[in-house]
Amino acid sequence: MRIARFSIDGNVAFGAVEDAGGGDPAGLLLDIIKGVPYSGAQLSGTKVRLSEVRLLPPVLPSKVVAVGRNYAEHAAELGNEVPEAAMTFFKPSTSVIGSGDPIVYPNFSDDVHYEAELAVVIGTLCREVPRERVKDVVYGYTCANDVTARDLQKSEKQWARAKGFDTSCPLGPWVETELDPSDLTVQCTVNGLQRQLGRTSEMIRTVEDLVVHVSEAMTLVPGDVILTGTPAGVGPLSVGDEVAVTIEGIGTLTNKVIKRG
Amino acid sequence: MRIARFSIDGNVAFGAVEDAGGGDPAGLLLDIIKGVPYSGAQLSGTKVRLSEVRLLPPVLPSKVVAVGRNYAEHAAELGNEVPEAAMTFFKPSTSVIGSGDPIVYPNFSDDVHYEAELAVVIGTLCREVPRERVKDVVYGYTCANDVTARDLQKSEKQWARAKGFDTSCPLGPWVETELDPSDLTVQCTVNGLQRQLGRTSEMIRTVEDLVVHVSEAMTLVPGDVILTGTPAGVGPLSVGDEVAVTIEGIGTLTNKVIKRG
Repeated sequence: MRIARFSIDGNVAFGAVEDAGGGDPAGLLLDIIKGVPYSGAQLSGTKVRLSEVRLLPPVLPSKVVAVGRNYAEHAAELGNEVPEAAMTFFKPSTSVIGSGDPIVYPNFSDDVHYEAELAVVIGTLCREVPRERVKDVVYGYTCANDVTARDLQKSEKQWARAKGFDTSCPLGPWVETELDPSDLTVQCTVNGLQRQLGRTSEMIRTVEDLVVHVSEAMTLVPGDVILTGTPAGVGPLSVGDEVAVTIEGIGTLTNKVIKRG
Repeated sequence: MRIARFSIDGNVAFGAVEDAGGGDPAGLLLDIIKGVPYSGAQLSGTKVRLSEVRLLPPVLPSKVVAVGRNYAEHAAELGNEVPEAAMTFFKPSTSVIGSGDPIVYPNFSDDVHYEAELAVVIGTLCREVPRERVKDVVYGYTCANDVTARDLQKSEKQWARAKGFDTSCPLGPWVETELDPSDLTVQCTVNGLQRQLGRTSEMIRTVEDLVVHVSEAMTLVPGDVILTGTPAGVGPLSVGDEVAVTIEGIGTLTNKVIKRG
């Protein structure tokens, strides 16, 4: 099931995405979900057109835990070794935006990059998750863009500002709850031109590895998100660009880059 | 005013700390606050003894933003340079505990350290705070212990697990809302023996500098916390230790280290 979060006429709701139009985005419908979907989505049968709503971030994570250098080719393109231990860092809740929301180019950077990534959405309060239980704590998957101020990432060493500024964590367009994450294409385009194309099978640490690793240290709560690293091909964004992250079996997360007003 | 958050008989409330006992901790009272105190605390006049309640973390931050190497002597003791740009990192909401709560020694580390720090509590939704407005967005100050798995900090390069594990962010005992943070003693004892003694006047970047720096990149929301770095003298904690952070004008944050059950 694909579960979107959206607003319409000032109300916020979750809805199951239905394709009633033979693949035409204009024909997509949202079957409004009663309450919050984490523990079993109950459909209301009341439907609205996707084109009539504003998509919101599909989850409101208390924390986003991300991993650096999880694709060998990407580590190499920035002149980095593949780290012996997974390099994990946080993106704060204030950095999260949805599909269609603008990425606001920060004043303090001249080198903001896109990074297309598969995002894992946690569905259950959990800690020290054993490998064989990972599938039970994962609610689903969505697309993410780990937007990064590359210049600050180098100068500040720890990445709270470089990877945590407002609008630096687009998530969406919805959460796909039934998906095998082991071998999916991850693509990024800028203004329609392909910039990244990788497969999740190239990850050095798999989704299972990452959930085990992160939850060994910290409690994960429903809605928390783990980002799984970006494939090769990262590069700069400019004001006016439209960046799109497409993951096989999920959909496309699209954001325009705007100047800070 | 000193504002504590506490539970009694299963109810959670905020209360203003009153000294009705001539400085004797056993004589401290809490005047229960109506509602949430951020926009002006209204006292109810109903009082309970501090000794009868369980103190909770005085705030529930959506994020804790911390800074590395903000005291020159501490940077030197770990063999580090003072960084040209402030090194900022996050501690997640799941790492926060209150005074009296146990620090649970994680299984994956053999070198967990205390780090006594002044914590700034934000009271107002804010972004890009100008230097002269910092005092208007700060709600108050509390004591923090930036508990750190020093071995992971070295091996994992980015510090999400090393500084973000459950119970690694003790905050408390309460928030002092009227305090000049510019020259206060910051002390840490372990089992009653002094391990750290610094003054906030030794900070390389002041409270004002840090609020400006962090809020340049990200929105801060009421209850968010900025940690201001630790003075020299950091060292290991062992299971069974009692670690206490005392800051002049605030009070003492005390936590025991226990083994993971």
